[in-house]
Amino acid sequence: MKVLITTVPFAEKNPLPIELLDSVEVEYLINPLNKKLSEDELAEMISDFDIIIAGTEPITDYVMDKATKLKMISRVGIGLDGIDLLAAERRGIRVSYTPDAPSPAVSEWTIGLLITLLRSVQLSNIKMHKGEWKRYSGKRIENSTIGIIGLGRIGSRVLNMLGVFGTPKILVNDLSPNPNLDRLFKLEWVDKNTIYRESDIISLHVPLTKLTKNMITKKQLEMMKSDAMIINTSRGGVVNEVDLYNSMKKGHLAGVAIDSFEQEPYDGPLREIDRCLLTAHMSSMSVDCRARMEIEATEEVIRFIKNISLKTEVPKEEYKVQREGI
Amino acid sequence: MKVLITTVPFAEKNPLPIELLDSVEVEYLINPLNKKLSEDELAEMISDFDIIIAGTEPITDYVMDKATKLKMISRVGIGLDGIDLLAAERRGIRVSYTPDAPSPAVSEWTIGLLITLLRSVQLSNIKMHKGEWKRYSGKRIENSTIGIIGLGRIGSRVLNMLGVFGTPKILVNDLSPNPNLDRLFKLEWVDKNTIYRESDIISLHVPLTKLTKNMITKKQLEMMKSDAMIINTSRGGVVNEVDLYNSMKKGHLAGVAIDSFEQEPYDGPLREIDRCLLTAHMSSMSVDCRARMEIEATEEVIRFIKNISLKTEVPKEEYKVQREGI
Repeated sequence: MKVLITTVPFAEKNPLPIELLDSVEVEYLINPLNKKLSEDELAEMISDFDIIIAGTEPITDYVMDKATKLKMISRVGIGLDGIDLLAAERRGIRVSYTPDAPSPAVSEWTIGLLITLLRSVQLSNIKMHKGEWKRYSGKRIENSTIGIIGLGRIGSRVLNMLGVFGTPKILVNDLSPNPNLDRLFKLEWVDKNTIYRESDIISLHVPLTKLTKNMITKKQLEMMKSDAMIINTSRGGVVNEVDLYNSMKKGHLAGVAIDSFEQEPYDGPLREIDRCLLTAHMSSMSVDCRARMEIEATEEVIRFIKNISLKTEVPKEEYKVQREGI
Repeated sequence: MKVLITTVPFAEKNPLPIELLDSVEVEYLINPLNKKLSEDELAEMISDFDIIIAGTEPITDYVMDKATKLKMISRVGIGLDGIDLLAAERRGIRVSYTPDAPSPAVSEWTIGLLITLLRSVQLSNIKMHKGEWKRYSGKRIENSTIGIIGLGRIGSRVLNMLGVFGTPKILVNDLSPNPNLDRLFKLEWVDKNTIYRESDIISLHVPLTKLTKNMITKKQLEMMKSDAMIINTSRGGVVNEVDLYNSMKKGHLAGVAIDSFEQEPYDGPLREIDRCLLTAHMSSMSVDCRARMEIEATEEVIRFIKNISLKTEVPKEEYKVQREGI
């Protein structure tokens, strides 16, 4: 069995995933291009491998056509938008992921960015480094209207952390509203348009699916208050980047924090705008969560090799989402 | 009665302080230089005024010599390092402040900066704007050793907020250890050197006094781990800026977030270093806390004018701190 590891960095701070692979004497290759692979790059690289330990790169029908030996995809992380699950199913390729591991890191990151944006920390920092002393005022969490779209593993953790900062007005939206959360928090379940119109700051915690692709375009951006803010730690395609750029270039929105992009590495025009706090898909990259993701994904590979039943195989509902678009 | 308002911006987001002054038909002037005044600038401006609504500018013995009509100083904020209390006492000038108002804003800011620093958010943002895609990993709060020096109004709030992020190792130091906090949190009371040596990130919540002036110089910086971090929302003089610059220039420390400086507006060499997240004395500048500070300070002025007993006069212990240096 030969394993291709596409996600980088891999085993950078914790060597255990490599030790696990060595323990079963499997042959492996870590992505030699050291960046997120394109469809063509992956197609060219994959033909010889039985298993892929994957990041967010596109594992499409076309890629699988070239991957004649591929038997298993083990995804480091939760998002499945990069993987054509139905194409994998047709070929009998099994797919696992690590749905819980990223949540603590992403939710804590979200709180940090929420405070940083609300208080214009990054704007004053940029000005100071350019030699200008500029004092911004901002809102505390408690005095803000916070919109959360997506209340799954990450969104509900964000909600929980918000509690310690007082009692902000929290507007939430999810495909399947969870009444348990109402007992724990003061929430208003509203439609997405209400979130766009009324929030001071909106945080997105949805997967990228046919339903959420381009969820926020020009139309939704124009509904938002002129000094609204957006945090996107989910997926790049959820917010249309061209529309976001055009809107912010005209002065709309007070700030955004974007951690994931349609094309990564990102080098698009949002870089021109100081109000865009841009990070390199790092929200899940705490040392502990990244290690846990890599270890869980590798353990799943070891189980597959040893022919032990898998623990975190992607559930059938996710295939249904890709099949039916909801 | 004539009132000089030196702190700027003033009544920017909430007009109530001005309305309060208008209601007693008092004459007032808002600092026409629109920046923190130097000793000389203040001395030149103050001669005609009975009351000053003050920021952090130096109200020294020399300034009071020129302020022949001055009867009251009402400080917007908590720090008293700018005011020579003993010189005021000798002249019968009464001094009030707003010790509680800044705490919610500064403590929330501290949490935001803690996460931002631990995860290298600002570094990735700077690189991205320069066209470089750089993924940093970092620690979550729970996996960090957090040192807090000063557990007064702000430090104890920071402690309370930390609880929602798990159970980090928390090292604390205060002149007067408070055993009540031990019952609420898992803490280790240690000496300052232990905090310097063992912490991943250190947050300072002390006033600037003879005892804390240059509390952290070359010697203390060298005790810290090479990838340690410091957050200073207290006062510039607490961390020696020249020593901090020399130390970081050589590559020591992974990051610092500095919000107050020995000389403000700041334009010193820390601006050369990307690992320095620099902000313009904004940690108390949430709209609500800033308004509360300005309103409380103005209400105290109104009481003084109406000859009603003052509510938040600076207590005698603070005079003792300046007299005895502890």
